[in-house]
Amino acid sequence: MKRLFFPLLILTFALSAAAHYLHFGPVPEFILSALAIVFVAGFLGKATEAVSHYAGQRLGGFLNATFGNAAELIISIFLIKEGLFDIVKASLTGSIIGNLLLVLGASAFVGGLKFKEQRFNIHLAGQNASLMMLGVISLFIPAVFVKTEKFPPNETISLSVTVAGCLILAYAGWLVYSMFTHKDLLEDHEETQPSHGEPPAWSRNKSILYLVLATLMVAFVSEWLVHTLHVFTDKFGLSELFVGAFLVAIIGNAAEHSAAILLAMKNKMGAAVEIAVGSSLQIALFVAPVLVFVSLIFGRPMDLIFSTIELAAIAVAVLIATSISRDGTTTWYEGKLLLIVYVILGVAFYFV
Amino acid sequence: MKRLFFPLLILTFALSAAAHYLHFGPVPEFILSALAIVFVAGFLGKATEAVSHYAGQRLGGFLNATFGNAAELIISIFLIKEGLFDIVKASLTGSIIGNLLLVLGASAFVGGLKFKEQRFNIHLAGQNASLMMLGVISLFIPAVFVKTEKFPPNETISLSVTVAGCLILAYAGWLVYSMFTHKDLLEDHEETQPSHGEPPAWSRNKSILYLVLATLMVAFVSEWLVHTLHVFTDKFGLSELFVGAFLVAIIGNAAEHSAAILLAMKNKMGAAVEIAVGSSLQIALFVAPVLVFVSLIFGRPMDLIFSTIELAAIAVAVLIATSISRDGTTTWYEGKLLLIVYVILGVAFYFV
Amino acid sequence: MKRLFFPLLILTFALSAAAHYLHFGPVPEFILSALAIVFVAGFLGKATEAVSHYAGQRLGGFLNATFGNAAELIISIFLIKEGLFDIVKASLTGSIIGNLLLVLGASAFVGGLKFKEQRFNIHLAGQNASLMMLGVISLFIPAVFVKTEKFPPNETISLSVTVAGCLILAYAGWLVYSMFTHKDLLEDHEETQPSHGEPPAWSRNKSILYLVLATLMVAFVSEWLVHTLHVFTDKFGLSELFVGAFLVAIIGNAAEHSAAILLAMKNKMGAAVEIAVGSSLQIALFVAPVLVFVSLIFGRPMDLIFSTIELAAIAVAVLIATSISRDGTTTWYEGKLLLIVYVILGVAFYFV
Repeated sequence: MKRLFFPLLILTFALSAAAHYLHFGPVPEFILSALAIVFVAGFLGKATEAVSHYAGQRLGGFLNATFGNAAELIISIFLIKEGLFDIVKASLTGSIIGNLLLVLGASAFVGGLKFKEQRFNIHLAGQNASLMMLGVISLFIPAVFVKTEKFPPNETISLSVTVAGCLILAYAGWLVYSMFTHKDLLEDHEETQPSHGEPPAWSRNKSILYLVLATLMVAFVSEWLVHTLHVFTDKFGLSELFVGAFLVAIIGNAAEHSAAILLAMKNKMGAAVEIAVGSSLQIALFVAPVLVFVSLIFGRPMDLIFSTIELAAIAVAVLIATSISRDGTTTWYEGKLLLIVYVILGVAFYFV
Repeated sequence: MKRLFFPLLILTFALSAAAHYLHFGPVPEFILSALAIVFVAGFLGKATEAVSHYAGQRLGGFLNATFGNAAELIISIFLIKEGLFDIVKASLTGSIIGNLLLVLGASAFVGGLKFKEQRFNIHLAGQNASLMMLGVISLFIPAVFVKTEKFPPNETISLSVTVAGCLILAYAGWLVYSMFTHKDLLEDHEETQPSHGEPPAWSRNKSILYLVLATLMVAFVSEWLVHTLHVFTDKFGLSELFVGAFLVAIIGNAAEHSAAILLAMKNKMGAAVEIAVGSSLQIALFVAPVLVFVSLIFGRPMDLIFSTIELAAIAVAVLIATSISRDGTTTWYEGKLLLIVYVILGVAFYFV
Repeated sequence: MKRLFFPLLILTFALSAAAHYLHFGPVPEFILSALAIVFVAGFLGKATEAVSHYAGQRLGGFLNATFGNAAELIISIFLIKEGLFDIVKASLTGSIIGNLLLVLGASAFVGGLKFKEQRFNIHLAGQNASLMMLGVISLFIPAVFVKTEKFPPNETISLSVTVAGCLILAYAGWLVYSMFTHKDLLEDHEETQPSHGEPPAWSRNKSILYLVLATLMVAFVSEWLVHTLHVFTDKFGLSELFVGAFLVAIIGNAAEHSAAILLAMKNKMGAAVEIAVGSSLQIALFVAPVLVFVSLIFGRPMDLIFSTIELAAIAVAVLIATSISRDGTTTWYEGKLLLIVYVILGVAFYFV
């Protein structure tokens, strides 16, 4: 089966591309791209694992999260150009809760079925919690203040831009802190030991090349799949909010999903957490504020005011994910709890 | 005095029963049942302690919480049959905050006056915190979404039923997790040591029999007492919300109170926490969702939408109890803080 | 330069006093008192450090916080006498968030640039978190209940007075707990070691005298400076809320600022935290409730109902400060996060 992987990867990718660009129609396009995403996501998982073998769990997780979100950033920029701010916000919301609840939950659950307790760096867990809290605060404060009678409506954009600037400063500081000044404090202890199991099949450079390639393929296939979804949902009568926050986010994060779950199954929970939580943090502290500045360049400024139910969903996801990961360990039951909260949110969004 | 305990227990119980069934009138009924509750609660405390000697602190606490809530469940089913949904929700709210603030607070305070620091399993404290958070989230999300303009009112029951199903799944998972797959992780370390102090006076089977018997007696006397309360409160002009959330809950949880405080005084804080927090968890994750399904059977569906002040009270109680118990230790001052929050909530509910 | 300190302190203080009492006009008064505050704050910092050398970090921090807040209490009493309740609440809000975000943030940031990780007692951090939560709860509950339709408006004062009484009880208990029954548990471990660096220049009694003197001087100069601010802000069109919550609070807490930062730079983070967090706690659990009782004496009762944005600001500050300090360590990046949240709140208040 291992020998067939690369041929099948290329075949399904090519068929899915043909279906998209030659307009086979929504149903074959959906089936082919859904098939392709299984293989490209698997490819990305292998590449991430190989890179994290060379670069350490955290840097590997960071690279995976960054490449995963690059796709999301590009798609959102196109949406902002067309003024579709509500869909952008719904999909940012969906990404944050999808990563914190679905990706982290599935990783902890699947990994926890195999290993009794999975550990990761407790300092990192604490810092992640504080950063997620900053993300929630920076979305919550503008929403509360703007809803006050006394707030002048014409200042909404100024407040959003200031908050966006603060978030980018916070994110830049985080990179300096976690990659340079306090790198050692946040690393997983297992990395210093020789890795268990077989060494990766690829060299260091080939692994990095494959990581970039796999991410690009995931980005393309995700977009093709997302493109077909709109047609499907029109038929099934699902709301834009639900499609943006759940379907788009789940498929758009397929890369993170598969990589994190595969790592958790190899007991590399530190890297899985870095992908899931790190990706949420990037969305809240980097992608969202960058989109505000991009919208300024387009001359159609987008504010950072999320709706009450989006804020409630984000706050709830951060609260439970923080409570569960704070002690630096996960078990199957903690994964199940995260998945249950995801289902509750999914049903609530479905009815709206 | 020890010799007089059983005769007095039977005497006060019999007098209270006679007063109730022969309709002595509210004043004698109140006095006699209030007197009886002191003895039956004391009996339950002794039985719980004896069982937890044989079964370990956690299982003993779990049994106590379950028997204590069985009474509550039965009373609530009668109320639901009559469509008194508001009183049911008020009494569920009162049970949760009463256990987290009054029972846990009084245990930590009284135990803390005798012992400088009382320890219990820190893993259990963390898991309890996450589960309580799930309880708050599952009450908070429906309330927030249903209050949105976009939510179709006729879907309120569907959402409530889905959330109720999720909660029961979470609770079932918790039983598997805490009783089987991760039992050892959540146990108190003291249990492995030989117990200090004298062995219990009763055999294992007798202890279990007495636990069941004592719980039943508490359930009966509580109901007789609750029955008289309505008459009393009509005279004093207290609101139904206050009576449901405070008076009924305090008396209905008399069993948990006395058992938890007695255990705390013997430095078995692990069992006391299991009773107080475990009982709240059972209410939020088991009793409340079961009542939703029971209401479906009766053909008068009850939703899970709690009022803003009920939600605020539950959220506040969970926040402070979680903050205090997270480190796996309690002191007299932490108990005092919980009691103060209970008083603040009590006064606020009194005025409404 | 050390030799010039006392002459310059006395000179700038005297000039500032002359400017104030002889009415030099707002501009010279502002410049001279701003200059004086640099020296008196420096004097207070030195005195606090000397006292904490003799009394231990925590008692030193407590003394500093108390003297710092004494000034605030006195100013607020004058404002209550004139019925300016909104300004009092804005300045209480500003003090709490200023201490938790600006003072703690600047201390952790500046100290963290010099030391990789700064530690303080983890028990104290946990207790502080629970106490701050009590403060938030006691402001949150009245606001939520009073905004309910069912709450009788004429009971707002009764509820506020009860809550105020509960808070004072909690604060009194905290003093007993932290100074007597559990003093050893909350102390910093470094204190038992001989202090690094040179011994203080002053004797024990002289240090205490200087601490009192320096606090008084800071109180006077702060008031002179605050007095000029109103004139300035009228010209620049800043809102009363912003001036009360930010300008007045920053200048009024100059003493805490300088002392805490100086201590953090000497790696005495325990004392810096005690000043910053302890001062917030005193405001929430002691100064605010005392002001409610004072207002009763004046016959113009003030309630404890804060506005939504004030509550949101306090809740946010407590959440992030608690999340960051819970592990008993701080780094430069955690300080930066607190400062960023302060800036976000400052900008939001500026626009209102």
